Amino acid sequence: MGDAIRPDWSGRLNRTWQRAAASSLAAGPAAVRAAVVISTPTNLNYLCGFRGSAGLMVLTSGEHYLLIDGRYDFAARSEQDAGRLGPVAIRRVEGRFDQALADLLGELPAGDVAFESEFVTVAVLTKWQAGSPTRTWVPTSELVEDLRVVKDAHELAIIRRACARLADVAKHLREFVAGGLTERQVAGSIDAAILRAGFSATAFPTIVASGPNSAHPHARPSDRKLRDGDLVVLDFGGVLDGYCGDLTRMAAVGQVQANARALVDAVRLAQDAALATVRAGVLASDVDQAARDVLSRHGLGEAFLHATGHGLGLDLHESPRIGRADAVRPIKLEAGTVCTIEPGAYVDGLGGARMEDDVVVTAEGCEVLTDAPRDLLIV
Amino acid sequence: MGDAIRPDWSGRLNRTWQRAAASSLAAGPAAVRAAVVISTPTNLNYLCGFRGSAGLMVLTSGEHYLLIDGRYDFAARSEQDAGRLGPVAIRRVEGRFDQALADLLGELPAGDVAFESEFVTVAVLTKWQAGSPTRTWVPTSELVEDLRVVKDAHELAIIRRACARLADVAKHLREFVAGGLTERQVAGSIDAAILRAGFSATAFPTIVASGPNSAHPHARPSDRKLRDGDLVVLDFGGVLDGYCGDLTRMAAVGQVQANARALVDAVRLAQDAALATVRAGVLASDVDQAARDVLSRHGLGEAFLHATGHGLGLDLHESPRIGRADAVRPIKLEAGTVCTIEPGAYVDGLGGARMEDDVVVTAEGCEVLTDAPRDLLIV
Repeated sequence: MGDAIRPDWSGRLNRTWQRAAASSLAAGPAAVRAAVVISTPTNLNYLCGFRGSAGLMVLTSGEHYLLIDGRYDFAARSEQDAGRLGPVAIRRVEGRFDQALADLLGELPAGDVAFESEFVTVAVLTKWQAGSPTRTWVPTSELVEDLRVVKDAHELAIIRRACARLADVAKHLREFVAGGLTERQVAGSIDAAILRAGFSATAFPTIVASGPNSAHPHARPSDRKLRDGDLVVLDFGGVLDGYCGDLTRMAAVGQVQANARALVDAVRLAQDAALATVRAGVLASDVDQAARDVLSRHGLGEAFLHATGHGLGLDLHESPRIGRADAVRPIKLEAGTVCTIEPGAYVDGLGGARMEDDVVVTAEGCEVLTDAPRDLLIV
Repeated sequence: MGDAIRPDWSGRLNRTWQRAAASSLAAGPAAVRAAVVISTPTNLNYLCGFRGSAGLMVLTSGEHYLLIDGRYDFAARSEQDAGRLGPVAIRRVEGRFDQALADLLGELPAGDVAFESEFVTVAVLTKWQAGSPTRTWVPTSELVEDLRVVKDAHELAIIRRACARLADVAKHLREFVAGGLTERQVAGSIDAAILRAGFSATAFPTIVASGPNSAHPHARPSDRKLRDGDLVVLDFGGVLDGYCGDLTRMAAVGQVQANARALVDAVRLAQDAALATVRAGVLASDVDQAARDVLSRHGLGEAFLHATGHGLGLDLHESPRIGRADAVRPIKLEAGTVCTIEPGAYVDGLGGARMEDDVVVTAEGCEVLTDAPRDLLIV
């Protein structure tokens, strides 16, 4: 069982500290890094297993600290005793977090302090600076996120399990989708199935978009009843041990128009092309282009309103983005990266289609983790 | 029906602009405000009804703008035609949001630009500044949130409905809780009931904390089976039309120890005391103190590990915090404010108890919106 293996927290912590110590973005060559403050919740989870809503980590060349308030103190110490929390020194915060951070930084030797510029708000940084006015505060970008792009064995074991369970839910979609039910009712049945499958939560509000609503990639379930001739987009996900799975399948109610059927087929071919392109060393934008080329050949280039996919892990959307070369930074796929492949096409007056699977990138190609039939489900 | 009335978007927009124009936090008396950038998702929803995951509003002395990408463009225009999106000029963003913002600001007359410092990250502000280097960027704090503290008639109608439905779920708890079931199973049944009740989602991962786990305010549902003698904390919420309801009830499996029963009784008395203190004009910290005094008299002062409550609305946790005088800014309750009243006590080795209701503050006191029996549910 994958969960018998503990996450390699020490390795993750050391790599983060090394990366932060090596970076000297704003600081110049003479700068010494005294500490890195980690505040992004999923990064706290990744680095030490802490999953509370309020916490801070302070990494240093010596000890690594976890600052938490009284609500989590006992639980965190128990988790650590049980080996479910990484090698961090726990500090209970009695008052305000910014004061506790200032106190801790006051104990450290001279040097600058790095922080996560994509998570820390202007208001929080202002408080931190006021608490430690003599420190230089150095913004970092994707410091931990870049390390999270390639999943380790522990993560892959969880993600495999999550995707297998999500595929099981997909195999039962026929039980939940039928003409006469509202989108909301169908979404409720899918949500219940996700929770029954052992997920701790849905990964996002389930999308059930029928008929004209299917033409909008981000439609929300409404009280519209599914009716004959509808295309129905079913997009859902679950969180297992903190990791997200994400899957989309298509249904049709009764008889659909030939051009609606052709739309679904084109999207499936686009997904095939993208899946065939995925391989370690390939540019993410090349995978996107493969899907886009197929849809363009079907006259649906303009109808593909979003990117082909996104990285998947502790966050539902994480690096790498599988998008157009002009919209994403150039990034080569690496073995062990997990991402979605989900082209779609949306045509007002006709409807929309999306097909989504989760894959892990390998040296030779990719492995599809959400192994459920992709055929148009006719109900 | 409450939903027949449209939200007063114009009033909300005007109040926000007036408030922003009046503030001159960092700018001095000669400063002119050219624009306010709103990026907090719940504030976008509040100000114009936009509920997508990516959008920006730019308020000016003339037009107010909503910047959205292609995924939301059609949906937003349809919503506006149907009167479900406020009086904003929609701009479709083709590339990056920061570039679109810079382009729009380039069209506006001279003056500084206010932004939401509690939501905008350091990385985002850095990009915005790079795009409009000649503008002065002025941080604001709680600009829209302060307006959201007092709910208007439209909001109260939705919240009343959400709380009534949540109370209905609470009345059925007996069907979901039983010895031998795991915490996860009970949570799954509650989640399904929340969705069946018409909520679009749970407001947070449902808490079912039994036996020793009940002693931790933020325990997550585990595979532990409920057994004789357990106290069980059941804390759950739902989102209806964007607004959150939040409710906690206590169950006991079979016979519980007399001192566990006493713990539950003390928490209920603490909640009574807090509820009796709520009234327009009272300090939020006085409400907290009322609950704390009761628990202290029962020797449970140290066991009350969190605040007495929090504001409730588009966010699950919003202003005002009902906490200790030394931990929260002094704030007087106002008529029309909606908040939770949820004291608790947590004792290792014995268990924990929490009792939570949602109330609307009135001139004379408060009205409890989650009208469900508070008796210890013995299963």
